[in-house]
Amino acid sequence: MHGGGKLATRLAEQMGVEQKMVDGRRITDAETLKIVTMVYAGYINKNIVARLQSHHCNAMGLCGADGDAVLAHKRAHPVLDFGFVGDVDAINTPLIKTLLESNITPVMSPITHDQQGQLLNTNADTIAQEMARGMSSDYKTELIYTFEKPGVLLDVNDETSVIPELNAGYYQQLKSKQKIFAGMLPKLDNAFTALNSGVSKVIIGQAEHLKKLISGESGTTITNE
Amino acid sequence: MHGGGKLATRLAEQMGVEQKMVDGRRITDAETLKIVTMVYAGYINKNIVARLQSHHCNAMGLCGADGDAVLAHKRAHPVLDFGFVGDVDAINTPLIKTLLESNITPVMSPITHDQQGQLLNTNADTIAQEMARGMSSDYKTELIYTFEKPGVLLDVNDETSVIPELNAGYYQQLKSKQKIFAGMLPKLDNAFTALNSGVSKVIIGQAEHLKKLISGESGTTITNE
Repeated sequence: MHGGGKLATRLAEQMGVEQKMVDGRRITDAETLKIVTMVYAGYINKNIVARLQSHHCNAMGLCGADGDAVLAHKRAHPVLDFGFVGDVDAINTPLIKTLLESNITPVMSPITHDQQGQLLNTNADTIAQEMARGMSSDYKTELIYTFEKPGVLLDVNDETSVIPELNAGYYQQLKSKQKIFAGMLPKLDNAFTALNSGVSKVIIGQAEHLKKLISGESGTTITNE
Repeated sequence: MHGGGKLATRLAEQMGVEQKMVDGRRITDAETLKIVTMVYAGYINKNIVARLQSHHCNAMGLCGADGDAVLAHKRAHPVLDFGFVGDVDAINTPLIKTLLESNITPVMSPITHDQQGQLLNTNADTIAQEMARGMSSDYKTELIYTFEKPGVLLDVNDETSVIPELNAGYYQQLKSKQKIFAGMLPKLDNAFTALNSGVSKVIIGQAEHLKKLISGESGTTITNE
């Protein structure tokens, strides 16, 4: 699962498309949907797939419309209209299973569809969490979130303050002391939702250290223990 | 198989990217490759897939890198550098067969890869022909080319002059009398290549009349008989 917000913002600027924000949240109008579909499902997705293919990984790029991989609905909100933003209804786990068992590695872009012909811009972390939940009924599933920081930090300004292990009790304790940076809360809430739904482990850290994230030498490992 | 050249040209204009032409042929420089990857493999491909999904067709969008569907190499030319243009080496027919037999309808965009991590812009008609050839060893295969005209015309300025049936002998005859519009020649050469490699029938006409094209009531039907 990948995103691509920064590249999308750059393309919007180049095309002279203004980014609409309401209450600090980006609104996906028709023109922005077009841009994120081009950047996420096209440029970024296909370049990742081509790179993986060059490393002999038989990757296949999918957005949520492909094979009905991720079904969503346009977000309803009593006051704000977020535009073409989708909330996930269902993950097509049999499709993902079929691909994995054919030794095909799915590479997902965060564009979903509503089965009515409408594409929707959807939060990548949430799809990853829903996907991991869905797969956990058939497989031992670990979810790895990568971002720009080396892990969940005790002090947002100190990159050496990575919390190596986190569970629900410790998370509540840190949250009540406001020790968790606000920007981390959605990712961590997604992580605990995944853990409570069958995912065995969630790891958060930097993509550059993927091998060390998997082995537990880097990043924050979150479990239910 | 779809294209999207007009939309790509429009996006290039909007982004201020100049289209480079040499000897009347478009050169795919790095910036143009980025644009066609976004437009073909992203915007157009995913919108077609979402539309098909809304009509209960389980479509899946692919570019040539996805599942190694279409392998190509950068075109070598003694004088001209066409840039990131690919010539097809191989179609992954087992992949397409697996998808069809899982009731998944592949929707192909004309972006290929070279297995070295490089995406390549590739002629859609040629991929369609290669794909049809590849499938014809396992299936009875008909290839339908759609474009803006109602079929192959005897007089390029008269839309009622559609040639309903064409075979190799008649084609050579018309060609020698210069009765075939030059713009049609690559499409027709692709058609005869497909017929000579196992495809049972090629139909050329307008997408709006798809059902009539299939039934032979519209367009030009090309066979080896």
